[in-house]
Amino acid sequence: MANVDVIVVGAGVAGLVTADRVRAAGRSVVVLEARDRVGGRTLTEPVPGVDGLVVDSGAAWVAPDHHLLCAELERFGLETTPQAGPGDALASLRGKTRRFAEAGRPLDPVTTADVAQAMVRFGAAAEHVDLAAPWRGHHAARYDAQTFESWIRRTCVTPKGRDYFRLVCEAVLATEPQNVSLLHMLFYARSGGGLLHLVTTGGGAQDARVVGGMQQVSERLADGLGMWVRLQEPVTTIVHDADGVSVHSESGATTAHRVVVTVPPALASSIEYLPGLPHERTQLVQRMPHGSVVKCHAVYSRPFWHDLALSGEIVSDEGPSKVVFDTTPPGSKYGVLTVLVEGEDALRLGVRGPARARTEVLRGLAEHLGPRAMDPVAFVSRDWTAEEWTRGCYGAHLPPGAWTQVGSALRAPVGRIHWAGTETAERWCGYVDGAIASGERAAAEVLAVLP
Amino acid sequence: MANVDVIVVGAGVAGLVTADRVRAAGRSVVVLEARDRVGGRTLTEPVPGVDGLVVDSGAAWVAPDHHLLCAELERFGLETTPQAGPGDALASLRGKTRRFAEAGRPLDPVTTADVAQAMVRFGAAAEHVDLAAPWRGHHAARYDAQTFESWIRRTCVTPKGRDYFRLVCEAVLATEPQNVSLLHMLFYARSGGGLLHLVTTGGGAQDARVVGGMQQVSERLADGLGMWVRLQEPVTTIVHDADGVSVHSESGATTAHRVVVTVPPALASSIEYLPGLPHERTQLVQRMPHGSVVKCHAVYSRPFWHDLALSGEIVSDEGPSKVVFDTTPPGSKYGVLTVLVEGEDALRLGVRGPARARTEVLRGLAEHLGPRAMDPVAFVSRDWTAEEWTRGCYGAHLPPGAWTQVGSALRAPVGRIHWAGTETAERWCGYVDGAIASGERAAAEVLAVLP
Repeated sequence: MANVDVIVVGAGVAGLVTADRVRAAGRSVVVLEARDRVGGRTLTEPVPGVDGLVVDSGAAWVAPDHHLLCAELERFGLETTPQAGPGDALASLRGKTRRFAEAGRPLDPVTTADVAQAMVRFGAAAEHVDLAAPWRGHHAARYDAQTFESWIRRTCVTPKGRDYFRLVCEAVLATEPQNVSLLHMLFYARSGGGLLHLVTTGGGAQDARVVGGMQQVSERLADGLGMWVRLQEPVTTIVHDADGVSVHSESGATTAHRVVVTVPPALASSIEYLPGLPHERTQLVQRMPHGSVVKCHAVYSRPFWHDLALSGEIVSDEGPSKVVFDTTPPGSKYGVLTVLVEGEDALRLGVRGPARARTEVLRGLAEHLGPRAMDPVAFVSRDWTAEEWTRGCYGAHLPPGAWTQVGSALRAPVGRIHWAGTETAERWCGYVDGAIASGERAAAEVLAVLP
Repeated sequence: MANVDVIVVGAGVAGLVTADRVRAAGRSVVVLEARDRVGGRTLTEPVPGVDGLVVDSGAAWVAPDHHLLCAELERFGLETTPQAGPGDALASLRGKTRRFAEAGRPLDPVTTADVAQAMVRFGAAAEHVDLAAPWRGHHAARYDAQTFESWIRRTCVTPKGRDYFRLVCEAVLATEPQNVSLLHMLFYARSGGGLLHLVTTGGGAQDARVVGGMQQVSERLADGLGMWVRLQEPVTTIVHDADGVSVHSESGATTAHRVVVTVPPALASSIEYLPGLPHERTQLVQRMPHGSVVKCHAVYSRPFWHDLALSGEIVSDEGPSKVVFDTTPPGSKYGVLTVLVEGEDALRLGVRGPARARTEVLRGLAEHLGPRAMDPVAFVSRDWTAEEWTRGCYGAHLPPGAWTQVGSALRAPVGRIHWAGTETAERWCGYVDGAIASGERAAAEVLAVLP
């Protein structure tokens, strides 16, 4: 006799959506979450010492074509605010800084031409990727045999052009291009509507933010599930056979017909499975490292960069403050800058400790915005590599060889065990929208086979 | 008050050597092992139904310059028997099979020339690798930004030449060249005295075997440690602070001044560390996948291949039986062939189940040795990916980017936690000799700082 129809491991967006859809179909479900909170990689935090101000230390942005996310926002009556604001953005490559407006050019003409030709070639190659089965598409083996860095060196003819693509890789995957399979980069870009779309503000992947914070999506979903979400219950073992599954945490075992594991690969591999998983799966989770991000928020008494007619958006090739956005909430008297420290910069910064990290990040801002950047009224940082129950953000990426050799194990159920999480999404892999898609897919999978 | 001076996690060769050296220095030690046996990746098994015959399902070969291993063999009075035997070996590439003697040429003249020029270039590049700090050597970043497959395609001018290097990669790392950083391949080859040395029988890495089996080294070491080796105690948690370490398994906690973790990276990452490990370490273990090997032994009533004046050594580009050796024990009336199924072939074979695997492997042998190969008197296979407490052999390899970004975390102690295992060796990384070296290094590390 099973306790419930379905057990969901992980109360991030993917897990909560899975549970929500299973419940909506009239079946019973329980969500087991390791942390003392829901939300996973969505996390909206209050700013210490600044009343009423919250920042998104996790996922934050909404694209117009995040159709699933937009539907959830509408369902819960949550509003968005556009990312793009008045003023010029700054782009700094190899010591040269350029101001540019939305319509203007961030790069000099020669670099622009180089980036354009390479972008066309990248886009053409991405067309070949089969999102449902990237291991199968035209040239898949060839694309998967090399790093994205190898492609950059071969394709770009200018040093700044190469730097541009390296920056793009860090900005979207939070890791450097030598760590990533070209096939994975092509897949990831196509999954999110193209490489340019991923790095675009107005109309792109950073089009808008959720007023009040992204974690509200998780919290509203959890509210609907009530007592069926059980916090502080890290899953240690999943026993599965022809009769059902038994999921073990410190508080004991829960049984069900099906289990949906929604935690990221590096965590899924820490769970003991009895009997063991198929070889492809065992290999795959050994080959999906996570990116590295320290997300920082500097809060100022006012958005002083407006005095310089700057928007607060900065892209720079000098770490640690390479990617900066103005994320001041609408109507706030404060000015808030989000600094995304990614890849190797994040690994280094995390090691140096919070005080040193704060100084380095602020110094990076001051470089572009002047000395006023050194004196925020508050500073919040979240190092996702240090999070025991995430172990790196934004998500997992695949090094060369993994997609074509063991990629088919990513979404394939193993008996009564199903897999969700944004890494398993075909569309918007790595984003909240992909997490929702994966939860809907997993829910459909289990609902189709429940007795 | 600590229970012992040092706790060693894992009773493979590295762990047992660590404990042996710590004890020899007069300090107390306990070894915690997950399995019900010692030896880790050394495993000598009896052949069912064939009295007195054993086979090495794990590490088997000894090189003349395995100085540390040779010293242990001498210490325990263990003898070796040469690998090379009478008769010709077979090399089969792209449907063309060539017989060759020890002195002869396995490849046609054009391919030989291509392989030679590429080997010279590989060797020259390997000269730049700093074995103690591969992330530091000349060109390290450039070598680490690409796959070994990218190097093969760029360097070899003939299809057979490319296939040769692909086969070599599978034979030494049990994974395909697209999965491996060029820098790692250069490091690994240099670590073992050069790429040619690694694939050579007489005088090379496959020079000889241990009479009675390699696992005896582990067993003799364990005999010396007696009750201080505790089996069936998988370690779940390591708590470490300024005062000491506390290592938890199901039977409770053991405390010590220092702990040496000797299990391979994919297993080390399943242990919970409190407080958590540094970022570089967290990232590194996410980026050290294991190779895949199914090691098979076909036992025949006699070595019938001698009738054909063949040595039983076969190298072929057609799976699953790509690498074959005659491993008949000296004085035996039987004939024993070892078949090493590696990389993707091993993943596929493991999935198909033992009966099907046996047929496929034997069919591969029959292709070269005739129909008599289909009828062994016994067949033993060991699928190392399926081993819960190993999760893949021969060892872990590094994909592009890992060495230069987080490689320095591989051997660096974290407070009171030290690391050993063949993956941490500078010389003979991936071999038993490297496991011994790593144990000696780790023992020296802890002995130098014990109170």
